Amino acid sequence: MSLPAVDVQAGNAARARQQQLTKPPGSLGRLEDLACWFAARLKNPVPAPPRCEIFVFAADHGVTVRGVSAFPQSVTAQMVGNFARGGAAINVLASLEDCRIEVVDVGVASDEPPPVGIRNERLRAGTRDLASTAAMTADELRSALAVGEHCVRAAVDRGVQLLIAGEMGIANSTAAACLICTFTGAAPEMVVGRGTGVDDAGLARKREVVRMALARVSKESSQEASRTLAGLGGFEIAAMAGFYIESARRGVPVMLDGYISTAAALAAVAMEPGVVDWMLASHRSAEGGHRIALEKLRLEPLLDLGLRLGEGTGAALTLPIVRAALTLHAKMATFGEAGVSEGIDESK
Amino acid sequence: MSLPAVDVQAGNAARARQQQLTKPPGSLGRLEDLACWFAARLKNPVPAPPRCEIFVFAADHGVTVRGVSAFPQSVTAQMVGNFARGGAAINVLASLEDCRIEVVDVGVASDEPPPVGIRNERLRAGTRDLASTAAMTADELRSALAVGEHCVRAAVDRGVQLLIAGEMGIANSTAAACLICTFTGAAPEMVVGRGTGVDDAGLARKREVVRMALARVSKESSQEASRTLAGLGGFEIAAMAGFYIESARRGVPVMLDGYISTAAALAAVAMEPGVVDWMLASHRSAEGGHRIALEKLRLEPLLDLGLRLGEGTGAALTLPIVRAALTLHAKMATFGEAGVSEGIDESK
Repeated sequence: MSLPAVDVQAGNAARARQQQLTKPPGSLGRLEDLACWFAARLKNPVPAPPRCEIFVFAADHGVTVRGVSAFPQSVTAQMVGNFARGGAAINVLASLEDCRIEVVDVGVASDEPPPVGIRNERLRAGTRDLASTAAMTADELRSALAVGEHCVRAAVDRGVQLLIAGEMGIANSTAAACLICTFTGAAPEMVVGRGTGVDDAGLARKREVVRMALARVSKESSQEASRTLAGLGGFEIAAMAGFYIESARRGVPVMLDGYISTAAALAAVAMEPGVVDWMLASHRSAEGGHRIALEKLRLEPLLDLGLRLGEGTGAALTLPIVRAALTLHAKMATFGEAGVSEGIDESK
Repeated sequence: MSLPAVDVQAGNAARARQQQLTKPPGSLGRLEDLACWFAARLKNPVPAPPRCEIFVFAADHGVTVRGVSAFPQSVTAQMVGNFARGGAAINVLASLEDCRIEVVDVGVASDEPPPVGIRNERLRAGTRDLASTAAMTADELRSALAVGEHCVRAAVDRGVQLLIAGEMGIANSTAAACLICTFTGAAPEMVVGRGTGVDDAGLARKREVVRMALARVSKESSQEASRTLAGLGGFEIAAMAGFYIESARRGVPVMLDGYISTAAALAAVAMEPGVVDWMLASHRSAEGGHRIALEKLRLEPLLDLGLRLGEGTGAALTLPIVRAALTLHAKMATFGEAGVSEGIDESK
């Protein structure tokens, strides 16, 4: 399925409008670029701030047994409970932005079913240990991708114009590190960070685990992107990759979040390169490897506030910047309307 | 008059609360610091987002005759008209944030009185040419400082808890450059930029003008900060300096804007060093010298989006980040409330 093209004409019309607004040309910096970016994707030279929805995908990781996280696996289910009760950071930000939020259990390891209000798409009680074997089967990967795709289709049916995917999954920064190493070619020392905050011993274990996983995968005959994602990813990461691909297919822009989200984005772009045209980078995470992942995608994040929480929080925090950019674009007076001189030559 | 102290206890209590919220410690990065910063200044461990007002000070500059701006002097008055009609960038952002905005004419060079809705505090039809003589007299400086002080007192009487000062004044980046050079010791080549967008010839003229002004002032017997401000500043810049000093005296935090605002902040801090404790840096301007001014104040800006418009726009754009930080701080569940494990050791 080919991807829809962005509307270059609407983007150009937006750029022309920016030159007419009562400010020195270029003086709103990246806000001007943002307005034009959205104009081209919302196919409207003067778009209203887009209606946004946030999806949080949660799953567990077999690799947790190797002591790569500062938190026990049970925290994934506990945090899903926290999402259901509205107590997590992403709930607070979604509420501030008046954004619909949906939390999807794609594979949490728990004996209990997900709490009321959480969408149950559980594929398995977490992935397998990626250090020793493929994290998921090809069938499981297809199912996880489909979960993300389905969420996008439902959101598009509700008229959504901007999509955010966040995640929760203890040890998922290990899986993300494996994917970032594979898709960027960067060494584990550059890409593996402390995640939620492992100590030095934990960090050393995490790096060793990533090296083992990369060595295992490099021996495989097929280096297809989807095979890499199945071998090294997580259910929530694969759901996000499917989410990003389907968003682009539907012509709906997405705002990436942090380290895990960008690992999923790398996988999505490896599977379908044009997807990157529909991606905006919200923030640069404090997790060092995030910079490498964003550079590979050639995306420049808008914020850099030292966040490293995930859940979609960095993306949600960027929504007011998008709203400001588009409201300035639509509501500022032009030089003509305001009777303001455009420059020293015109006025003399 | 001594400045009020920040409430260290409230700040510490806020820090302790941050450690209990359902997220890895430190994972909200600078949002955590922001919450604690406001807690200490609003004297409340869990403060609500502060009620904010924006003041825009407008004035003209005698140095305009030297061809240092890409826009003619008449644009200052034209933009004041645009503010009055709500068509400027700062109007749009203030409206988005539901912030009261007041525009104060401190010395626009116009035969017409300021339009309806603009506060008339005009001291003179612009400053004198700072390249050849002091921009303002000592009396004029006192009056300009008093304009800013008065605005703060009125706002405090209305219950305001966070203040923003913005500005408009063709050629005021030349005055600001002179102040930044003087208060930081940096060379004009590092500090003087294109402002609203002068061409290469204009930039060369602007640098030469700044060198002339600095040479003139360096010969003076007194190097007092207030004398520097009178010699090299502008009416709107002096009003902002008074605004920042009075805010600190009243124990109300201020959010700095860009290049001009930070030049005023340097002057304020030179006159009254403790004032810096009440200052937050909103953004880093595209005008190169802004970085030098912020470093001198040891302030790290929150945003870096290539803005170089002034008016208070960078500060207003940062308000949603402040709101997010304080709402997360107040509304997120704690580990105890949510039944989430705090780390690997506690849960085993």
